[in-house]
Parts: sequence; C-alpha cells; structure tokens
Amino acid sequence: MGAIKMSTKIRFLGFSAFLITTSEGINILIDPYLDDNPSTPLKVKDLTKVDLILVSHGAFDHIGDTAEIATKFGCPVICGGDSKLLLIEKGVSSKQLIETVWGLTVKAAGIMVRPVESHHRSVVKLKDGSIVSALPLGFIIYLENGVRIYNASDTGIFSDMKLIGELYRPHIGFINVTIENCFDFLPEFLNGEMTPYEAAIASQWLNLEYAIACHYTKKDCSDIKQFIQLLENMRSEDKSYTIPVALDPGEEFVYEKK
Amino acid sequence: MGAIKMSTKIRFLGFSAFLITTSEGINILIDPYLDDNPSTPLKVKDLTKVDLILVSHGAFDHIGDTAEIATKFGCPVICGGDSKLLLIEKGVSSKQLIETVWGLTVKAAGIMVRPVESHHRSVVKLKDGSIVSALPLGFIIYLENGVRIYNASDTGIFSDMKLIGELYRPHIGFINVTIENCFDFLPEFLNGEMTPYEAAIASQWLNLEYAIACHYTKKDCSDIKQFIQLLENMRSEDKSYTIPVALDPGEEFVYEKK
Amino acid sequence: MGAIKMSTKIRFLGFSAFLITTSEGINILIDPYLDDNPSTPLKVKDLTKVDLILVSHGAFDHIGDTAEIATKFGCPVICGGDSKLLLIEKGVSSKQLIETVWGLTVKAAGIMVRPVESHHRSVVKLKDGSIVSALPLGFIIYLENGVRIYNASDTGIFSDMKLIGELYRPHIGFINVTIENCFDFLPEFLNGEMTPYEAAIASQWLNLEYAIACHYTKKDCSDIKQFIQLLENMRSEDKSYTIPVALDPGEEFVYEKK
Repeated sequence: MGAIKMSTKIRFLGFSAFLITTSEGINILIDPYLDDNPSTPLKVKDLTKVDLILVSHGAFDHIGDTAEIATKFGCPVICGGDSKLLLIEKGVSSKQLIETVWGLTVKAAGIMVRPVESHHRSVVKLKDGSIVSALPLGFIIYLENGVRIYNASDTGIFSDMKLIGELYRPHIGFINVTIENCFDFLPEFLNGEMTPYEAAIASQWLNLEYAIACHYTKKDCSDIKQFIQLLENMRSEDKSYTIPVALDPGEEFVYEKK
Repeated sequence: MGAIKMSTKIRFLGFSAFLITTSEGINILIDPYLDDNPSTPLKVKDLTKVDLILVSHGAFDHIGDTAEIATKFGCPVICGGDSKLLLIEKGVSSKQLIETVWGLTVKAAGIMVRPVESHHRSVVKLKDGSIVSALPLGFIIYLENGVRIYNASDTGIFSDMKLIGELYRPHIGFINVTIENCFDFLPEFLNGEMTPYEAAIASQWLNLEYAIACHYTKKDCSDIKQFIQLLENMRSEDKSYTIPVALDPGEEFVYEKK
Repeated sequence: MGAIKMSTKIRFLGFSAFLITTSEGINILIDPYLDDNPSTPLKVKDLTKVDLILVSHGAFDHIGDTAEIATKFGCPVICGGDSKLLLIEKGVSSKQLIETVWGLTVKAAGIMVRPVESHHRSVVKLKDGSIVSALPLGFIIYLENGVRIYNASDTGIFSDMKLIGELYRPHIGFINVTIENCFDFLPEFLNGEMTPYEAAIASQWLNLEYAIACHYTKKDCSDIKQFIQLLENMRSEDKSYTIPVALDPGEEFVYEKK
C-alpha cells in the first residue's frame, strides 16, 4: 500500500467542532456546528468528503448542521437517542443513525468508536414540542493507525477520567475549557463545565500526550491562556507530560504517531 | 421451622432475566423478558408463583413481560419512574408499583432491595408517543438468609463499583458482559456496555464470591469465554477470588451460604 | 462599611428548605417547600426579602413554592432545565430563570453558585401532561465573606464527594440523611438516598466543618440521631473533624467564620 502514512490531521472548527482526517484519508466530523457558528471559516458548502459524524449530545452548538451534512454525504452518524430522533425529523435516514450508550462500542466507516461517560445533559425539542433527553456521550475514537482520540464533549470534571485514561489510553484529547458567552439568551457563566484548572488536571488524569482545548471561538481569551499556563507549569514541575494545544478556528494540528 | 434452609437457587433465563428462589421459597424475578426472548425455555405461562419483580430500566429486553406477570400474580414491582408509567398503561395497578431511585431502599415481599447507580439510560415510549426517561437501577438484593446479590443490569464500568463492593458486600453479582446482536434493527456493537475485561475487573472491584455473567443467549460465545478466562487468570495470580459462572438459559446455580 | 460582619445565618425550614442570610444581608432560599410543608413555621406570606432562590431538582418537595416566591420578589432562580419549564408555566419570567448544568458557574444577586454532581433524578410534569427530565443539581454557594456552603440536595453517595471536598473546600454542608414518610402516596422507604452511615462518611469525605442534616421534619428521629452519633464517634476517634448539626424546622444555626 505504499509508504506508511502516520500523520493525523485535526482541524479545529470553533466551539466543539473538529474535523479529523486520518492517515488513510477518512474524514470524521465531531459536533459540526458550522453555518451558524460565527467563528469557523469552514461551512457546510465547503465540505467535500465526510465519512463519519459523531454527535456528543443534543445541544444546538453540538448537533449543529449534522442533518444537512449527513444527508449530503449519506455517512453514518453515531449519537444518542435524543439526537437520533431529532435527526430523523430533519430527514436523515434512520439507517445512517447509530444510537448508542456508554460502553456500546461500534465500528462505522472503518473507525471504532467507544462512547464513554460524560457529566452533562443531552436534550432535544422535537417538532411536536416534546422534550427528549438521553445520555450525553464522550467518545474514544480508534484511528486505523493506532492513534486514540478522546472527545470529552461538554462535561464537568469527574474522577473516572482517570479510569478512561487507564483503560483506553488516549493519545490526544479534545478538552472543553471555557464557554462561549456570545449568545444573548444565555446567562453569563463564570466558567465552562470545567474551569481551566479542572481541564488541566483532567488532561493529566487522562494521561494525554496532547490536550487540545475547545468550546471557544478565539484562543486569545483568559481561560485558554490559563489552561495552557497551568499545563506548562505541571510539565515544568514534572507533574504531567501533557502538552496543551490551543487552535484558532480553522487551524490544523498534525499529530505524528511515534 | 424445621431444618435451616440456606440454599439460594438462581436460574438464568437468557438476556438479563433471572429467577431467584430464596431459601424460604420467595420467588424474585429480575428483568423478565421471556415470551419474546428466543433463548429462554421458561415462558410466562410456566410461572406458578412470583412474589417480587425487579425492573432495572425501561428497555424492551428488561421490562419484558413484567406487566403480564405482575397482573397475573398481583406482586410488587420495584422499578424506575419511566417503567412505572409504562406498566400503569399496560394495566398494572399503581399500588403494586414501587418507584424508587438510587439509595432509596425498600422492602417488599419480605425482601430488602437497595437501588444503586447504573451507568446506562432508561427510557420508555408511552401510548401517546411521548418519551420518558428516568434513572436506570442497579440493585442490591438482601435475601432473608443474609445472602446479598448485586444485579448490575446494563451498565458501563465505573469506579464506584468498588464503593458498592465496600458498602454492601454482595456475595453474588449478575454482571453484564456481552450483548445480543440478534435483532435486525440494532447496530452491530463490538462489545456490550462492559467488555469482558471490564466485566472481570468490575467483578474483582465488587469483591464477589461468584460473578454470574449475563446479557447473552448462549454461554458458548467468545465474550463469555474470555470473561471466564480473565477471572480464572486473576484467581490463579491471586488478584481476585471471584469465581466466574456462565449458565445457559434455563440452567440453575445453587448457592450454599457459608 | 463599619464593623466586619462575618456571621452567616442558616435557618432550616424542614425537608430540604434552607434560608441563608449572608453577612451582608443577602437572603438565599434553597428548595423552598413551605406552604404545603407540614413542619415549617415559615410560610410564603412571612417572607419579607428574598434575593436568590436555588432549586436542586424538580420534585414537589424541592421546587415547592418557588414560582410564587420568585414572582413576589422578582429575584433570580438558579435551576435545571426541567424546573425552568415548570416555573415559566407557573408565570415566572424567563429573565429571572438561570438554567444551568454541572460545572457552569453563575453569579446572581452577588453570589457565585457552582452546580455540582448529584446522584438523583430530576423530573417535572408540565400542564400538557408531558414529562421532562434534567440533571439534578448539587450546589457550592460562595458567600461574599468567603464562606462556602455545599447543598447536597437529594443524592445517593458517590466517591467524587471527595473531589468536591478537595476542589471546592466547603465549610458547611447540607446533607440529606433520612426521608420523610409523611405522604400516603409514597412507598415506605427504609432509608433516604443516603443511610445515616453514608451521610456521615460523605460529610467526612467532603471535609466539612459542619454537616447540617436535612430531609426531615423532626430532628428527634432515629436516622438523625444515628447520623449525629456516627460523626461524633468519628470525631472522638480522630477520623473526622466534622461537627454534626441537626435543627428543628424554624431553628437557626449561626456560623462565625474563623
């Protein structure tokens, strides 16, 4: 099959949206909130190939444009029960939708995905006004080249992140650090589901090589700077070997597997 | 009262269904999915005495034939709030239904039952199409002769299984190991809510004497074999003293209290 | 501003209702179940100033008279998504309602409030009969004088209470110990979400100075006595330094910050 391709490309798309391009060229979209996302340069019309979509929970800034993208590319979507119902309402074929819960590992588009605990809420409102909730999902994504990525999604800190680190040994984590207060209808939160300190110790507990911050629109903000500084301090004190990463929306991080 | 009866009979009924017959002859049914369960030899019509039913969560393969059995025998049912609503719709008297949550311990049919944490989802669809979710329930079942049984139900692994082991010291656990992929409408999962390895360390954390595997239709399957092997290895390495047990649907395990 | 005021007044109102009066005179009501609460001497008509209401979850004995009080005083209410919908139906302005989840810290009425994990269920029934669930909320309440109060709400025990103790170092905790069996329609529970022993070790794990018991109507009951005794024993054995407190509804505890 030619030269060994070990590079994994990770493009941050603002909020919690990521586009992973595996070494074999498989495109995995996570929480693709694009068209109404004020920060990302990548819109649905710009996507040329999507092989798999992961939706962590039913919030508007996570489910985002999943319906349109899934319909356009006919690709599988791994999600919770509430998101599934909403996506069916929006015209996605139920055959594309893989509903799962914590632990039930699936393979789709050649990629193994293990849903893990997330300490958050997942809820959608359907057309008839009914409100449906389900389990919010973290994900361990197993790429074909052996790279393991942990998508924390929106979650508060919990000690079993240590267990996730021990059992599934992710190399890279997408860690929610701050919260966008760019919507009028939201109350002003003082921090995201994890404070910068909590996000830093979570990264340490997960034993990540790289902790890529997310849930923001600009990396030049105090919470992200603090997260970076805290992990750098832990590194200099030999308390952690996790390298913090913060990308601006559109920026790409390339991971070379050792 | 004659001779001391210390034998507890545990009959596996396929999937997560169990019939416990206590030393005093009390019959406790757990997650009685029988008539549509392709694997069990025991059907609703075969039941002659049921004193108590425990329903861990609202899934079809757990709530099963609870409504019919509860109506037939007039026995109490311990369950979550979603299952309660569904069972009322199916004609069960609300007087029989004991809705509970994690921690709220109840006594019914002479048996004390403590609901404990389960890392899963519980959801039912009612007649009007509405979808209701609740807490999924693990159970610690305290038999009259002092035997304590832990029913894990469908759950992902979590570290507080150690706490459940410490606080409630179950002798026997019903541990979900694999998943039935015998339904066309389900995606093909690579493992159950716990992998065989996770189920083995969960059994160790719970400090069980006997870990009885469940959530399958035939014990002759790779996940179950692996679970058995892993616990046997732990035993030979003195890392655990838990004895793994796998039964075929219909088979009975007799526990003699020491 | 004159003399330093360091006294925090905590008035227990039966069940899980508390009125905190901060050193600066801010009145915070928690789970204000008053008018239908057979045990409290304080009714809605007696309230003269309420600055902030915290609702832990949607149960009738927690959401209580929140709608009436919030409407009367126009104060902010911090709550989960289900309680928010119910309160809007009951006429509370959505502008007063701060919906949050675990981790998302807010400031209202000058008080910082951090919602934390609670191992319980939160569910409400709306006018149209629909049933909505959300995350139940524990709270860390940061008073202006540096005092931190943990409101456990109804929760089962979980090991991350240790993490809550480490990360947020509450001085005082409102700890649910027992359960009121004063309603005909409830099954008879043998203990609350935490047994007295669990509530005692939870208080120790949280490293509280004072553990104020709640979820009862009279302190002269066996569970509360046992809780007090267990913590006193731990203190005499140097296993904990937490001082247990039990108040009768209407009684006040004054905390002087060291």
